[in-house]
Amino acid sequence: MNSQFNHIGIVTRPQTPMMSEVLNELIAFLCEAGLSVYLDGEAQADNHISAANLQCCQIITKCEMGRRCDLVMVLGGDGTLLSVARKLAPYRVPLIGIHQGHLGFLTQVPRAQMVSELTGMLTGKYLPEERILLETTVVREGRDVYHSLALNDVVLSRGALGQMIEFEVFINKEFVYTQRSDGLIVSTPTGSTAYALAAGGPILQPTLRAFSLVPICPQSMSNRPIAVSDTSEIEVLITKGGDARAHFDGQAFFDLQTMDKIRISRYRNSLRILHPVNYQYYRTLRQKLHWGDQLV
Amino acid sequence: MNSQFNHIGIVTRPQTPMMSEVLNELIAFLCEAGLSVYLDGEAQADNHISAANLQCCQIITKCEMGRRCDLVMVLGGDGTLLSVARKLAPYRVPLIGIHQGHLGFLTQVPRAQMVSELTGMLTGKYLPEERILLETTVVREGRDVYHSLALNDVVLSRGALGQMIEFEVFINKEFVYTQRSDGLIVSTPTGSTAYALAAGGPILQPTLRAFSLVPICPQSMSNRPIAVSDTSEIEVLITKGGDARAHFDGQAFFDLQTMDKIRISRYRNSLRILHPVNYQYYRTLRQKLHWGDQLV
Amino acid sequence: MNSQFNHIGIVTRPQTPMMSEVLNELIAFLCEAGLSVYLDGEAQADNHISAANLQCCQIITKCEMGRRCDLVMVLGGDGTLLSVARKLAPYRVPLIGIHQGHLGFLTQVPRAQMVSELTGMLTGKYLPEERILLETTVVREGRDVYHSLALNDVVLSRGALGQMIEFEVFINKEFVYTQRSDGLIVSTPTGSTAYALAAGGPILQPTLRAFSLVPICPQSMSNRPIAVSDTSEIEVLITKGGDARAHFDGQAFFDLQTMDKIRISRYRNSLRILHPVNYQYYRTLRQKLHWGDQLV
Amino acid sequence: MNSQFNHIGIVTRPQTPMMSEVLNELIAFLCEAGLSVYLDGEAQADNHISAANLQCCQIITKCEMGRRCDLVMVLGGDGTLLSVARKLAPYRVPLIGIHQGHLGFLTQVPRAQMVSELTGMLTGKYLPEERILLETTVVREGRDVYHSLALNDVVLSRGALGQMIEFEVFINKEFVYTQRSDGLIVSTPTGSTAYALAAGGPILQPTLRAFSLVPICPQSMSNRPIAVSDTSEIEVLITKGGDARAHFDGQAFFDLQTMDKIRISRYRNSLRILHPVNYQYYRTLRQKLHWGDQLV
Repeated sequence: MNSQFNHIGIVTRPQTPMMSEVLNELIAFLCEAGLSVYLDGEAQADNHISAANLQCCQIITKCEMGRRCDLVMVLGGDGTLLSVARKLAPYRVPLIGIHQGHLGFLTQVPRAQMVSELTGMLTGKYLPEERILLETTVVREGRDVYHSLALNDVVLSRGALGQMIEFEVFINKEFVYTQRSDGLIVSTPTGSTAYALAAGGPILQPTLRAFSLVPICPQSMSNRPIAVSDTSEIEVLITKGGDARAHFDGQAFFDLQTMDKIRISRYRNSLRILHPVNYQYYRTLRQKLHWGDQLV
Repeated sequence: MNSQFNHIGIVTRPQTPMMSEVLNELIAFLCEAGLSVYLDGEAQADNHISAANLQCCQIITKCEMGRRCDLVMVLGGDGTLLSVARKLAPYRVPLIGIHQGHLGFLTQVPRAQMVSELTGMLTGKYLPEERILLETTVVREGRDVYHSLALNDVVLSRGALGQMIEFEVFINKEFVYTQRSDGLIVSTPTGSTAYALAAGGPILQPTLRAFSLVPICPQSMSNRPIAVSDTSEIEVLITKGGDARAHFDGQAFFDLQTMDKIRISRYRNSLRILHPVNYQYYRTLRQKLHWGDQLV
Repeated sequence: MNSQFNHIGIVTRPQTPMMSEVLNELIAFLCEAGLSVYLDGEAQADNHISAANLQCCQIITKCEMGRRCDLVMVLGGDGTLLSVARKLAPYRVPLIGIHQGHLGFLTQVPRAQMVSELTGMLTGKYLPEERILLETTVVREGRDVYHSLALNDVVLSRGALGQMIEFEVFINKEFVYTQRSDGLIVSTPTGSTAYALAAGGPILQPTLRAFSLVPICPQSMSNRPIAVSDTSEIEVLITKGGDARAHFDGQAFFDLQTMDKIRISRYRNSLRILHPVNYQYYRTLRQKLHWGDQLV
Repeated sequence: MNSQFNHIGIVTRPQTPMMSEVLNELIAFLCEAGLSVYLDGEAQADNHISAANLQCCQIITKCEMGRRCDLVMVLGGDGTLLSVARKLAPYRVPLIGIHQGHLGFLTQVPRAQMVSELTGMLTGKYLPEERILLETTVVREGRDVYHSLALNDVVLSRGALGQMIEFEVFINKEFVYTQRSDGLIVSTPTGSTAYALAAGGPILQPTLRAFSLVPICPQSMSNRPIAVSDTSEIEVLITKGGDARAHFDGQAFFDLQTMDKIRISRYRNSLRILHPVNYQYYRTLRQKLHWGDQLV
């Protein structure tokens, strides 16, 4: 095979039954194609790998994978890909998402056509897409106390107390508003079809260089979603924190305090995802959102 | 004074500075009018009561107040009145709300005109309004494990984990839908201008014999607010609870578990609130919601 | 057959191809059951009726039908039933809706099971449901200039000019707000799943004694849907009419002028619809709104 | 005066009482500053111009103004500026908006400080802002039958019949969805705080290179606003037109027919608006939307 990629990493959805079979199939396919295969240590721990496959691949961490691979394949759903993307974004390695049944926005290769689809993609038959990530720093009393990336969204949100939180929002140092609400979602185009959509935010076309600020149940009904250029610097000052918490892709979090400043901007690297050549963003949206369906 | 009411209870907003002056003024006014005055024990603890006033009133608990008073006056805001209403609802004693600056939906007597307004109201110059309450029972493995009233709303909601919860909703035993969301608000007309409004629910006219079911950020955009007759019995079965919690008027809560059933229906007693004769519901709404204001 | 009903009217969807077959089948079934059958004159004009069927039924107008029938069957969809309901409401005759393919909210008898279903229903195996109607009077310079009923909704709406209209809303003579918008929907529970839902209104349970006021694209974002008791009297004063028009069930209309007053209240009669015994309101809603469907 | 601009055009809000005084004041100010002043023919017809002022300025059409002026001042509100912008966009002449009382998004110079503010702006003390415009072509049976620019929005909308229209939307030739609704708004960032906001669309920061597609009361609740890059080409195919009409900034329109194609993309020129140096976009938004105001 005349592959464009030579060092292929594999990551799997953690602790997922029935994953071993497809994983072994994938390793075997890549080894037979003469490629160097790197398996995530967690994927090895979670699955039964055949002896032959174990011999042909190296077990490494995700960080090493970032340094050594020129392509990483993710077996799982969008959630798995989100978590891999946050870890690998510093290394600029492209990802391919292979879904296990449910079509994902980011995991478009169906497991059933995995080998035939990947055969084409490795030789260049793919549609690349760049997705922006968000970089967040929490500043407390002048010191950076937390840092995280997010591919979907940064959610500043009330916790279990059930009391609204209050905060001030600044865009490029300009004061925007004081808000009292259940929280605020800062969403990339990728995240705009996830939680931000449920909270009433707009869909942002993936190629739009923008992110959105979507209030969660704001007390003032005129606090509406705002879309800003992805060169914008967002700062949120928590003025009444209660049990506020910052969530990153719904997978990592950090507990906030009153007077914390949360600084959010585009991460310097974007994520490169490779899709099958028949990929159409709006077809996926139509399926997910039942577009065309009508209240006849 | 030819008062329609003879045994008057007084409750105050807890731990509020500057409340003693108005409280003493109110006690003195009622004593001079020859009425029996009953002061909430907490109100006494929180405030400095003059010796003369202490002599003319009895210090009792809110429960005793329910049994012995034919009218209770609440010094505070809507939040204080909510909490008093839940405690006194079993006793059917009417309430008058006296606000300390911000006009409330339920506390319409302004502190500045307190004495003149109350003089009229005690002699029958008032507008009575009946507000329904909700009664909630949490059933776990066949046993009732929690019980509460609510005047505004019962909110079933995710906690700090930031993960949506899943539940099934039944109205009068008929299955309505499975929902995946941040939670569900069951709101009385009184609560329809509070959290339910922020979550996108309709305003329910106070006299409407109804309550509303308002989803909080539902994943499926067709999960819309539903208004049902106040004779309806709502049952919510938590199918994926995470850290779900039930909140009552945002003032009391109970932690839920997967497979808990939450049964919600109208409480047998309604709350009787007495308003000044110039009370107009929609005028209050206009002030609160800036109606008439336009994006010129 | 031991039928509860003896004088059966039949109305069909106007100018609909393929309707003759089911119509003849229905007439024959009713005649054989020994019932008096009355056919709407328009239904006769639109369809080919067999000679035998023509002999056994009388051709009359819808008004006569109201006076002489104790049950009217509607062959068509919800739209046809809406138009029949407005005409027959003064006569209090119950309706059965037979749909031709698409399940309707009001037309629940499927054409495929028509005969077997009706056999049961005529002998008392049905679920009756009362639906309220709205009665509207347009007052211009002190004179009533138009009058109409509506089963779904009264829509006051801008026309082709594309300019917002302005109006004042009163509920039971109390001023509610001035609104600038594309219009206002006053919706019954029946209409709450139609246009009012598309405009952001709540779903009103069919048995709720209420109607809703739903603004269409209001300029002020705090002009939210309001649900009021069905004993309420709504008055809308058009203050800047442009090319405003009043629509009734989207099937009849009247052109409005600035300073027109539109008075809307519950009609004295409600509509009685008979459903098959397995009727479940929320099951129909789930099908129509894809409830349970999720953005996985 | 060391003015950066030498040939100044003046346009006024049509048929507006009380405009003559400020217009004469403006002309006199510019003439005294030694600048060449060009007055719109309609402005002359609508106002009383003093003899001295008439002598020092030339009366020309707006098109000539585009060719001969290096700055045009608009006396009026945002509506007047919209209409001037559509006419002058081909000529790339910058605009200054002078409002007559109500602060506008685009008309930020207050009449009261007109002379002092303009004195500064002419010498370079201004904040320039580039706003994109939309260019629309209606194609009928293969021929271009209408063409228009828009600074706020292109609205495809039902007319007076009150029936929803149906259409298909394509973005960059990719099919997006079939929609049944009252219409579709394609809005620039400038228009995102106008009609698009009333219809539930997001606010787009003025500098965002994007426009939004906002459905008006769509029958399917998952048809949500979409924001796309301003390099996108939108095509809408009317499949059930009824009395559909295309509106441009709510000021010009064209009647549509079933099977018309409406092509919308960014216009090659953007509009350059000059604001006072203390201009802050979000401060204007806060004032217009009552941000910070809360439902206490």
